[in-house]
Amino acid sequence: MKVPENLKDFIRREDRLLILSHINPEGDALGSSIALALSLQGAGKEVQVYNRDGVPGIYSFLPKAEIVSTSIDDSSLSATPAIILDCNSLERVGLDGKPIPFSAVVDHHETENSFGDIRWIEPHAPATGLMVYYLIRELGYPITPEIATNLYTAIAIDTGTFRYENTTADTFRAAADLVEHGARPGFVSIKLYESWSRERFSLLRRMLQTLEIIDLTGEDPSRKITIAITCITREMFSQTGTTSADTENFSNFPRMISDVDISAMFRETGDGKWKASLRSKGDVNVAVVASSLGGGGHRNAAGFLMEGTFGVARDAFIHTVKEKLL
Amino acid sequence: MKVPENLKDFIRREDRLLILSHINPEGDALGSSIALALSLQGAGKEVQVYNRDGVPGIYSFLPKAEIVSTSIDDSSLSATPAIILDCNSLERVGLDGKPIPFSAVVDHHETENSFGDIRWIEPHAPATGLMVYYLIRELGYPITPEIATNLYTAIAIDTGTFRYENTTADTFRAAADLVEHGARPGFVSIKLYESWSRERFSLLRRMLQTLEIIDLTGEDPSRKITIAITCITREMFSQTGTTSADTENFSNFPRMISDVDISAMFRETGDGKWKASLRSKGDVNVAVVASSLGGGGHRNAAGFLMEGTFGVARDAFIHTVKEKLL
Repeated sequence: MKVPENLKDFIRREDRLLILSHINPEGDALGSSIALALSLQGAGKEVQVYNRDGVPGIYSFLPKAEIVSTSIDDSSLSATPAIILDCNSLERVGLDGKPIPFSAVVDHHETENSFGDIRWIEPHAPATGLMVYYLIRELGYPITPEIATNLYTAIAIDTGTFRYENTTADTFRAAADLVEHGARPGFVSIKLYESWSRERFSLLRRMLQTLEIIDLTGEDPSRKITIAITCITREMFSQTGTTSADTENFSNFPRMISDVDISAMFRETGDGKWKASLRSKGDVNVAVVASSLGGGGHRNAAGFLMEGTFGVARDAFIHTVKEKLL
Repeated sequence: MKVPENLKDFIRREDRLLILSHINPEGDALGSSIALALSLQGAGKEVQVYNRDGVPGIYSFLPKAEIVSTSIDDSSLSATPAIILDCNSLERVGLDGKPIPFSAVVDHHETENSFGDIRWIEPHAPATGLMVYYLIRELGYPITPEIATNLYTAIAIDTGTFRYENTTADTFRAAADLVEHGARPGFVSIKLYESWSRERFSLLRRMLQTLEIIDLTGEDPSRKITIAITCITREMFSQTGTTSADTENFSNFPRMISDVDISAMFRETGDGKWKASLRSKGDVNVAVVASSLGGGGHRNAAGFLMEGTFGVARDAFIHTVKEKLL
């Protein structure tokens, strides 16, 4: 991975910088933003970090998470050059149409737009956190324990702590360096994976009770797709005292079953309104299914919205899987 | 970590070697054994790999797993020097009292015995697989993709794929090198974590239905321990068509809850016979509880056996936690 010279020159040149990332941020967006901010502050620059939705409770353990602000005034915005992390449009940042004097995009998502005065896009990088790690290294700025923990978490989240296919030898090498500079794998994992509320765990148990496994075969009987369907009703949320935010990652559980190709979790977001989260394995493309139902996403992670009863949403999904994938 | 010179000399000198590991082997014992065997075979040596219980289905994906044999004749045993991996007694190998001409022990478990003509014990090493990695590297033998996958799996299992406290910078550096030599993190993770049978998943769901969370407070009310108790009856095994082997790792699930200090899973192994698996977080020492109930183990992972009803076993456990930890 080659850090563009003009990006480094730009950062070295500026004394005041704004760091922006996408709405509904997860660990990669947040860890990358905080790490880069701390690193630039360490180099004597004045830095503001803005995220429209702020830091969710699960990420409040990130050192210096408090530097992420959910407000920014238009005068700062129009006067300060910005680095945009883990996304590549102002729309994704929640600042569509706002005036920004200069922008540098650092992102690992494929993109079709051309936004950004400086653009560093690496679709093969497992995490923006890994790109920011190289950026800080090449700028020659020190990695403090706080920076290390933020970057480690960013990388951990987007690689499923080194379990996904995107985990490379370079990912492990960066992790080694970050541990050496103070990141603690055990601490981060407990924060990420062993910090559920009792209510959230109770919701998971209820969701798993709804599990239905369906084997679909095409006209050619060798074509087979197995789907796991689960559902969370508004009643289950209210009985357990949980909200939609508590369901993050739930749709991955049925993937543990060897022959399940697609896990589809339906949650009721309003009266008769359903949001489906689809997760698939390997080559099974759920983005095709989701977009055919008016949604979108990536090959292995997509979603769509639907109105009606759960039965209607479920049947439409099964029908679309048959039509598009068999 | 320093590989002892006499261990390297011994291996270089011998043309025939036996590789032994503990009964009920998991990924570290198996991956280490197969990797070392392939490496020594590559160096022109004749190698036999013995494990009393052989390779369980979940580990059959390990490249060249078929070289692990569950039988060995006494004449081989008495004529061949042995390398004993991931344990440090012939009793743990299941060959107690058998004559062995020479033995080299490579293990990361603390030990109180002095078995072994050559002893390389590293209690701080996260996995025997990491020790074998250094051994192969220092012997100057090549790392093939098969060897890399076996060592990577060994390390992954004993660090919870890099999630446990024992994960060090060196662990990540070794992982980087193994990925470079052909180990595929995504492939190994799918084999380890996404290859459950439907029956096993169904058993997990039933177990989770039995979850009971109990807050225990000592006389000093600031002393508090929260335990999560789950149970699997023989009826649940028979209804789902599963066996005890399917419960591996189940006791870790309730640990996901933030305030749970100890997860205790009771499973019925025979009529009125219970086996309890205890998992704890941080400084909470379940080995003390287990040994007080006639069992044993380590600080964060221990177990014990008990006869009677589930209620009797459960109450004895709760009583002992109060007595020993509060």
